[in-house]
Amino acid sequence: QITPADTAAVWDLLHSPAAGLNLTDPPFTASQTDNYVAFIDTLHTNKSAVLPYIDGNGLQPAKFARAVIFEGGRTVPISQEYMIGPLPVSNRTRIQKLDYIFNGGKGGTVPFNARFFDLQRDAASEPLLASVMTEVADITTELFGGVYYGADDDRTDLIYTFDTPVSTDGSSAVRIVMFRYPTEVEFLQPLDFYVILDIPGTDPSKYTLRGIVTNEKFFSTVDKFRQAYDAGEITNPYPQPRDYEWAQLTRKEEMGTRPLENKLAPQSIELGGKRYKIDTQQNYVEYLGWSFYMSWTRQLGLMFFDVKFKGERIIYELSMQEATAQYAGNTPKAASTVYHDTHYGFGAQSAVLVEGFDCPFGATLLNASYPDGRHTTIKPQAICIFEADYGFPLARHRTSSFGPFQGYGFSDLGVVKASALHVRHIATVGNYDYLFDFAFNVDGSLEVGVRASGYLQASPYYKTQGRFGPRVHNSTQGSYHDHVVTFKADFDVLGTKNSFQVTELKTVKQSQPWFPELGEFDQMELQASNLKREKQLNFAENGQAMYTVISERTNAWGEKRGYRITPGHSNIHLTSPNSPFSRKQSEFSKSHLAVTRVHDTEPYANSWQNINLPEAPQHDFAKFFNDESVEDEDITVWFNLGMHHFTRSEDIPVTLFTEASSSILFAPQNFFDRAQEGDLQNRRWIETGEDQDELNF
Amino acid sequence: QITPADTAAVWDLLHSPAAGLNLTDPPFTASQTDNYVAFIDTLHTNKSAVLPYIDGNGLQPAKFARAVIFEGGRTVPISQEYMIGPLPVSNRTRIQKLDYIFNGGKGGTVPFNARFFDLQRDAASEPLLASVMTEVADITTELFGGVYYGADDDRTDLIYTFDTPVSTDGSSAVRIVMFRYPTEVEFLQPLDFYVILDIPGTDPSKYTLRGIVTNEKFFSTVDKFRQAYDAGEITNPYPQPRDYEWAQLTRKEEMGTRPLENKLAPQSIELGGKRYKIDTQQNYVEYLGWSFYMSWTRQLGLMFFDVKFKGERIIYELSMQEATAQYAGNTPKAASTVYHDTHYGFGAQSAVLVEGFDCPFGATLLNASYPDGRHTTIKPQAICIFEADYGFPLARHRTSSFGPFQGYGFSDLGVVKASALHVRHIATVGNYDYLFDFAFNVDGSLEVGVRASGYLQASPYYKTQGRFGPRVHNSTQGSYHDHVVTFKADFDVLGTKNSFQVTELKTVKQSQPWFPELGEFDQMELQASNLKREKQLNFAENGQAMYTVISERTNAWGEKRGYRITPGHSNIHLTSPNSPFSRKQSEFSKSHLAVTRVHDTEPYANSWQNINLPEAPQHDFAKFFNDESVEDEDITVWFNLGMHHFTRSEDIPVTLFTEASSSILFAPQNFFDRAQEGDLQNRRWIETGEDQDELNF
Ligand SMILES: [Ca+2]
Ligand SMILES: [Ca+2]
Ligand SMILES: [Ca+2]
Ligand SMILES: [Ca+2]
Ligand SMILES: [Cu+2]
Ligand SMILES: [Cu+2]
Repeated sequence: QITPADTAAVWDLLHSPAAGLNLTDPPFTASQTDNYVAFIDTLHTNKSAVLPYIDGNGLQPAKFARAVIFEGGRTVPISQEYMIGPLPVSNRTRIQKLDYIFNGGKGGTVPFNARFFDLQRDAASEPLLASVMTEVADITTELFGGVYYGADDDRTDLIYTFDTPVSTDGSSAVRIVMFRYPTEVEFLQPLDFYVILDIPGTDPSKYTLRGIVTNEKFFSTVDKFRQAYDAGEITNPYPQPRDYEWAQLTRKEEMGTRPLENKLAPQSIELGGKRYKIDTQQNYVEYLGWSFYMSWTRQLGLMFFDVKFKGERIIYELSMQEATAQYAGNTPKAASTVYHDTHYGFGAQSAVLVEGFDCPFGATLLNASYPDGRHTTIKPQAICIFEADYGFPLARHRTSSFGPFQGYGFSDLGVVKASALHVRHIATVGNYDYLFDFAFNVDGSLEVGVRASGYLQASPYYKTQGRFGPRVHNSTQGSYHDHVVTFKADFDVLGTKNSFQVTELKTVKQSQPWFPELGEFDQMELQASNLKREKQLNFAENGQAMYTVISERTNAWGEKRGYRITPGHSNIHLTSPNSPFSRKQSEFSKSHLAVTRVHDTEPYANSWQNINLPEAPQHDFAKFFNDESVEDEDITVWFNLGMHHFTRSEDIPVTLFTEASSSILFAPQNFFDRAQEGDLQNRRWIETGEDQDELNF
Repeated sequence: QITPADTAAVWDLLHSPAAGLNLTDPPFTASQTDNYVAFIDTLHTNKSAVLPYIDGNGLQPAKFARAVIFEGGRTVPISQEYMIGPLPVSNRTRIQKLDYIFNGGKGGTVPFNARFFDLQRDAASEPLLASVMTEVADITTELFGGVYYGADDDRTDLIYTFDTPVSTDGSSAVRIVMFRYPTEVEFLQPLDFYVILDIPGTDPSKYTLRGIVTNEKFFSTVDKFRQAYDAGEITNPYPQPRDYEWAQLTRKEEMGTRPLENKLAPQSIELGGKRYKIDTQQNYVEYLGWSFYMSWTRQLGLMFFDVKFKGERIIYELSMQEATAQYAGNTPKAASTVYHDTHYGFGAQSAVLVEGFDCPFGATLLNASYPDGRHTTIKPQAICIFEADYGFPLARHRTSSFGPFQGYGFSDLGVVKASALHVRHIATVGNYDYLFDFAFNVDGSLEVGVRASGYLQASPYYKTQGRFGPRVHNSTQGSYHDHVVTFKADFDVLGTKNSFQVTELKTVKQSQPWFPELGEFDQMELQASNLKREKQLNFAENGQAMYTVISERTNAWGEKRGYRITPGHSNIHLTSPNSPFSRKQSEFSKSHLAVTRVHDTEPYANSWQNINLPEAPQHDFAKFFNDESVEDEDITVWFNLGMHHFTRSEDIPVTLFTEASSSILFAPQNFFDRAQEGDLQNRRWIETGEDQDELNF
C-alpha cells in the first residue's frame, strides 16, 4: 500500500504544471467538462516482480500509484487511468498511461458516457429533470403528496435513485430516475414514478426526455402523460407510507419481548488469551501454523498475500474481485439494474465494526485506510481479527461395542478442539451490508464466506408483477435479484507449478469372479484428470466431482499433494447469461469456477468502470481464456459465491445475515501424510476403568 | 417413550407361557434355531391419534411397545415383529403382529437369511470359517504373521469383519470375511485376505466355502489357493504394520507444538446465563419463542415433535430416519458394502459427550435411555443442549454516504445479535462418529446438520485400484464411499393442510416500450407452482429454484405464509441408483427431497431389517409414491444430507468434522409480516454526533 505521504506527493505531481494535465482542484468545484482527479489508489505490484523478492534474492520491487482522471475537457471527453512511479516521488517518477491491465482494446481509456456517474454528471442533467418534474408537480402532489423542483429547491420533498448501467457501449447514456420518499430508509420507499432522460455526451443542451413511466405505462411526452392522468387512467392504489420507523433496524416495543431474552446472549470468548500475533507495520499475521500478509485497496477492500500453513505456501493471493447484483422486474429501473459494487469501492465503503455484535467481544480491531483525494482517509476499526470456537470438535472417535453394555460403554474416547482465526470486514455499499469473513482453521483448511444484510433495493408494488418478487410492505415489492461475488485465489501449492484436477464420481459396469450371480453390475468409481486448458466450469450436479489444485510433489504415500476446493453454502453463478445489461462486462460471474494462467496483465477479474460498458467492455474476463495450458503451470482459480435472493417479507427491515450466506472451503487433500490434529494440545483422551463406570482423563 | 417398568412387564408378558412364543431367556444362551427376543422398543403413536389429543379434546392415546422376535425355531425360520399394548400391561394388553408400518407385502416378517447377523448366526458359521483358516494357517502366517483357528482359540491373532448386505432377497446368504489385525484401530488395518462362505438357512451342515480372495484373485477352493501360493503368485507387497499408535486419536509428540497452542482454545459461553428452559419430565424445551418435545428411540436416536415458533406449529415431527453408506471398490467387501446404520441403532450407539469438546463448557447434558432386553439402559450425558453464539450478526445496516467523509462516516448503525439453541448427540456406529446438531435460531429458522468423524472403513492398498480412493497409509486404501443421511420433516405449517411450492428461476424474453432499442431481451422471472403429486425431486442446478412448504393462510401483505427449505452444505443423494446392493431397500437415499402424503402406515422411511433385502424389501419407500395429491394436504418432506467422501490422507487417524459436514436450513418465507428481530433486546443502535467523530449508543 502506498503511504499518505506518497498519495499527497502523487496528487501534487499530477496537479503540477509540468504534468500538463490541466486539472481542476479541488475536484468538487469542477464541472463535467473540466479535467479532474477521480481518485488515487495503490497499484498492485506485479507477481513476476514479487516472487523473486520474497522467495529469492530479487530486489524489492518499486511501488506505484494509480490515478483515474476524468478528462471532460478534451475534444473527445474520456476517463483516463495513469500509473505513477516509482514511489516515493522523485525525479525518476513518471506519469504513464495505465493500459496493460485492461484487455478491452482501449487500455485505461473509458468513454465519457460510460464513466462513473459522479456529482458533476448529476449536476449536468439536473435542469432537465427539474423542468420535467416541475411541469407535472400538480400530478405528483396528488399521486404521492410530493414534488421535485430540483435538489436545491426548498419545496422539493422527493428524492430519487437512477439506473445502472447508464450506457451499453459508451456511445450514448440513458438516465432512468425512480423517485422515493426522502427518508433514511429510502431503499424501501420507492414510488411508482420514473422519468427517463437521454443524456449523451457533455453538452446538456442535447439532453432530452425519453418519457415517463408509471402504472406500468409509458408516455413519451409530458402532454401524453397529462392526458392519461386527466382521463383517470393513472392511479396510486397502494400508497407508500410516509412514516419509516417500520423499516429502521431499531427495537420495536410493539412486538413485545421474549422470556429470558433480556439476558446477554452467548459469545465466543478467547478464554485462554490471544493465540495469534499481528505485526501491524507489515500487516502480517501468524496463527497456529498459519501466516499471511494483508493489504487494503479502495476498490477491493481486504486482500491476502503469501498465505502459508506450517511454512509451506498454499496461496499467493486471495482477494474479492467483484460483487455483481442483477435485478429482475418489469419497470425501467428493476429490469435493467446490474451493479458492480467495486464501482463504489469495498475499501471506501467499509467502516467501523461494533465489538460484541459485528465481531466478538475481545476481537482485535484494526483501522483501514485508503487515499481520498490528496488525503488519506482512515476507517477506524474497519477490520476485526479474532479466534473463535468452531462450534464442533475437529476430530472425534469413541471405541464402541455392539453388545449389551452398561456404564459409559467404551474403552477409550478421543476428541480434539477446533477453532479458527477469523479476519472480517463489512462494506456497506448503499443499501447492502456485505460481511466478508476469512476463517483460517487449525486443520489447515481455509473458509471464505460472504453474507448480506441491509436493505432490499425495492420496487413499487404491482399486483400483476408477482413473478418478480413478493409484496413485502404496503406499497413495496421485494424485487428478485442475484448476488454473485467473484473471488480470486491464486493458489501456489508448494510453488507456482500446479494443475487443476477434476475427480469425477461415475457409475460404471463392473464384474467380479466371486460374484458370478451378479454378472455385470453398477459400481461407483473415481475418474481423475487434470484440466488441460483454461476454462470456466461449474460444480458437478449432486456434488459428484472433486476439484483439487495439485502439485507434482507427493506425500509419504505417493499421492500428489493438493488443496481441495470444496463447495459450501450457495455457490452460484448469474442466472441470466445473456442479458443486455450484463452481457460482456460480467463474464466472471457466469460460472462457479474458472481456471486461468497467471499473467501480470491479468491481475483483476474486472475493471472499475466496466459497469457501464456491457456491450464494449474496458476489460473482458472472457478474453483470459485463450486456450493456454493449465497443466503444471502457474494457475489462478476464480470462484463465485452469492445468493439467489428470493426476497421475502422477512427481508423487512433488513435482509438477515443468517440466511443470506455463501461460502467455500479450501482443505488439504493428500497434502500431508495425515491429519494436522496430532500436534494440538487442546484435546482429551479418555479411558474407562475396568467396570466402564469410571473415566480416566 | 415407554417406561423401564413397561419394558420389564412387556418382557415378562412375551416370555409368559400364555403368550405361546416359546422363547429362550436369556437370549445369549440361545442358538440361531431357537426363538428369542431381539429387542423391545417404543412404538410411536399414530399421528391421527396424537393430533386430536394435543390440539383438541381427544383422549390421550394408548402407548404401545414393539418387539422383534427371532423365531429360528419355526419350520420356516423368520424374524417377526410384534406390537404390545395398551401399556401399562394389564389384562387388556394384547400381543399382535406389527405389520401395518411395513409395505413390502410380508408385514413384520423377515426371512431368516436376511435377519440381523447376530452372535448366534456368527456362532453357526464359525466352524466352517475356522476350518478353512486352519487349512491355510501356514500361508497366513507367512503373508501376514497371523492365524485364525477360531475366535476362542488362544493361538488366534487375527480378527475379521464381514459383508453387508449378507442377502439380496432372503433366499440365500453369503458371508464375506475380511481379516484385520486385532487392534483398537482395526478399521484402518485391513489385510488382503477374504474368505467367502455360502451360509443359507439355519443348518450349518449346508454351509460351504465359495472361495478365497487375495491379490485381486479368486480361488474357488483351498487347494487352488495353495497351488497359486506355492507357485509364488501370492505376495504381500505392502505389509500392514502391526503397531497402531499412528491411528489413535492421541497427541503425537513427534509432530511438535504450535506457538501459543498450549493456551486454552476459545469457547462460546452463555455469558448472560441460561436463556432456555427444559422440562426433563416431559422432554420439553422452550427457547426465545421456540418450543418442542424430544423423544429417543433405540434405532433413530433423537426425534423432535410439535416444533413451534412464537406459538405457531411449524413441524409435527423432525427425525433422522436412516444413514446409508455405500462403498466402492474391487474387493469382495468394499465393492458390495451398503450400510443402514439404524440397523445398529443410533439411540443404542450414542454415548457420553465430552463437555468443552463435544459441546461447549456449560452445556446442559441429558441422559438418554432405551430398552435393552428386560432392562433399560441409561446412556449418561448422551444429549447436550446449549445456546451458542451464531458467529455472525443476525441483522445489520449502516447508513452510508458516497461522498468524501471523515470520522465514522455514517449517521446511524443498527446491529442485532444472533444466537441459536443447539441440541446435539453423537452416535458412534462402529467406525463412524455421527454428530447430529439441531440449531433453533432466534429469527425462526432451524438448521439441521450432520457431521462425520471416526475411522474410515479402509481396504487393503492395491497399486491398481486408485480409482476407488487414495493410499492413506502403508498398506491402507481409503475406500471411496457415499454417506446419505435421510431425515423426515413432517411440516405442519399453521395446521396440517399444506402445499409444496417450487419457485423456479427462469430466463424468459421480455420487451419494454421504454427500451425500444433492445427489442426482445433476456429477463429473469420466478415461476411458482405447487407440486401436484407425491414425488422424489432434486435441488435445481445452480440453486435456481426455491422450495417452500406453504399454507393457504396469508400474511399482512397477502402472501401465502410458508417455510422455505434452503440447501446448505453438501445436500446429496446416492451416486449409484441401480447397484444390486442398494437397489430397492434404499430408495429414500436416491433424491435430495421427497414429498408424500402423511399416513399412519408410513411413519418411517426405512425398516430395521431392510438392509439385507435389496431385491425384496420388507419396506419399500418407493411405494409411498402412489400418485396422491400433495396440494393443500397433510404432507411430509423427506430430505437427505450426506457427503461424497473423497477420502484423503488427512482422514488418518480420523475423518475431520470440519470438512465432513452437511446441513439444511428451514426459514420463514413470508411467514411473518416482517423479520423477527424487532423484539430482540441484544442489539445496538448507534447514532453519530454532528461531527461524525462521536458515537451515541
Ligand atoms: Ca489465458
Ligand atoms: Ca498459482
Ligand atoms: Ca402415497
Ligand atoms: Ca404435514
Ligand atoms: Cu439481496
Ligand atoms: Cu466417510
